[in-house]
Amino acid sequence: MRVNPEDYGIPAEYQHWEGDRAEDHNGPFFFRCHDNGVHTLFRVQGHNCNGHGGLHGGIMMLFADFTLCIAGTRGDQDDSVITVTCNNEFVGPASDGDLIEGHGEVVRRGGSLIFTRCTLSTGDQTILTASAVLKRLRN
Amino acid sequence: MRVNPEDYGIPAEYQHWEGDRAEDHNGPFFFRCHDNGVHTLFRVQGHNCNGHGGLHGGIMMLFADFTLCIAGTRGDQDDSVITVTCNNEFVGPASDGDLIEGHGEVVRRGGSLIFTRCTLSTGDQTILTASAVLKRLRN
Amino acid sequence: MRVNPEDYGIPAEYQHWEGDRAEDHNGPFFFRCHDNGVHTLFRVQGHNCNGHGGLHGGIMMLFADFTLCIAGTRGDQDDSVITVTCNNEFVGPASDGDLIEGHGEVVRRGGSLIFTRCTLSTGDQTILTASAVLKRLRN
Amino acid sequence: MRVNPEDYGIPAEYQHWEGDRAEDHNGPFFFRCHDNGVHTLFRVQGHNCNGHGGLHGGIMMLFADFTLCIAGTRGDQDDSVITVTCNNEFVGPASDGDLIEGHGEVVRRGGSLIFTRCTLSTGDQTILTASAVLKRLRN
Repeated sequence: MRVNPEDYGIPAEYQHWEGDRAEDHNGPFFFRCHDNGVHTLFRVQGHNCNGHGGLHGGIMMLFADFTLCIAGTRGDQDDSVITVTCNNEFVGPASDGDLIEGHGEVVRRGGSLIFTRCTLSTGDQTILTASAVLKRLRN
Repeated sequence: MRVNPEDYGIPAEYQHWEGDRAEDHNGPFFFRCHDNGVHTLFRVQGHNCNGHGGLHGGIMMLFADFTLCIAGTRGDQDDSVITVTCNNEFVGPASDGDLIEGHGEVVRRGGSLIFTRCTLSTGDQTILTASAVLKRLRN
Repeated sequence: MRVNPEDYGIPAEYQHWEGDRAEDHNGPFFFRCHDNGVHTLFRVQGHNCNGHGGLHGGIMMLFADFTLCIAGTRGDQDDSVITVTCNNEFVGPASDGDLIEGHGEVVRRGGSLIFTRCTLSTGDQTILTASAVLKRLRN
Repeated sequence: MRVNPEDYGIPAEYQHWEGDRAEDHNGPFFFRCHDNGVHTLFRVQGHNCNGHGGLHGGIMMLFADFTLCIAGTRGDQDDSVITVTCNNEFVGPASDGDLIEGHGEVVRRGGSLIFTRCTLSTGDQTILTASAVLKRLRN
């Protein structure tokens, strides 16, 4: 699947991670790595919303997990991690049509475990804080 | 939408929570309340899977959130809660076609906050432990 | 140091874990392993209390960590684990003089990581739920 | 009790929070508020150490809880919060004699709940990341 970020109002320099059906079924999700971590983007659609008409907390966690894992692999498709723990605080709401931005960083990269954190926001409002421990898979 | 649990190999006495588009887009998810909590069920499909071909951790968290919130509302469609925190440990994997079972319980129901816990499993293997604090919305 | 559980109103069959100065400085803490996990006990003293006169949440977390690690090692002084993550929900209060009971269990014992959970209670009131991932140290 | 930070090699402009016996029994702990959060300091002593001779994880959580609550109250002795949840990742170790530094920030201050995060470090090494939801007590 060739996914075009501009179809979702997202700048063309953002990349799409290939091959994750669950993420594509809810997203697509986009990312861009920089020196200190990763910046991710996602446009909320109606099928991401809960019974209150807002972005579902579970979809926030799905996008947080994407952000944390991309931070852990630095967006390298040949690298591979699994999530061991993921803790989330739901700081505020988001709505259909909103652009959700994630900022992920690695706190420490150990031999087998990687400690990561992220925040999700829309506009200038933080909506989620999350932290994860990832385990590196040996290829 | 009338959703039939038997279409997913799930017993007819399980209920479907109406009106959550994000859950229906990934599920559907089913539940049955009992005296000490809630039992939930979900059949993994291909669009729930990650790049390794297993159930995506984010979808596990989405289903855990469903399980924890149904425990908090006791499945009452007139009751309403939002998730404040959700912590998850990824204990084991699950695969396309697996039946995922959730067991949710309320640890304490306070005036404004509800403390809940759940486990997800498939067969006799636990795949996720989670805990959440929910906030009651006044109707 | 020879520590006598009966000095703290705790049955004589409970054991003391030897050699942890931080735990002895705040406890002492006692444990008893059984087939499905561990039962721990601790008597609250004035120096465990916060400015509101109740058991300090940080001391609850210290005792939860003890309970989770004893569950992970099954109380074997020759075994050794470190805590990787510890998540805590503060469900209710406790007071000076209360007997705090912990119930810890292993959810899954992997090759390098152990998943554990516990609850702390006093009388019939749960005061804390916690979960941890532990890492086994090779001796 | 009049506590002098310089007795612990801590600059004189740091303040001591009065009236918490559990913290003084393990600390004392010191803090200094600034525009974007709080900076806290604590000198590790032998009675803070575990059986491996390092700073006990439970004492790290106690000091994280102090840091998170001071961030929530901005160090105002007339303000009061309780911790609802506290999640912790143990990123690295610390030793007897080390100076532990905490950096706490408020992510969002709501009407009844406050979302906070902190990191603990020694030298240039992060040793713990933590996040908490606090509940404001009405005076």
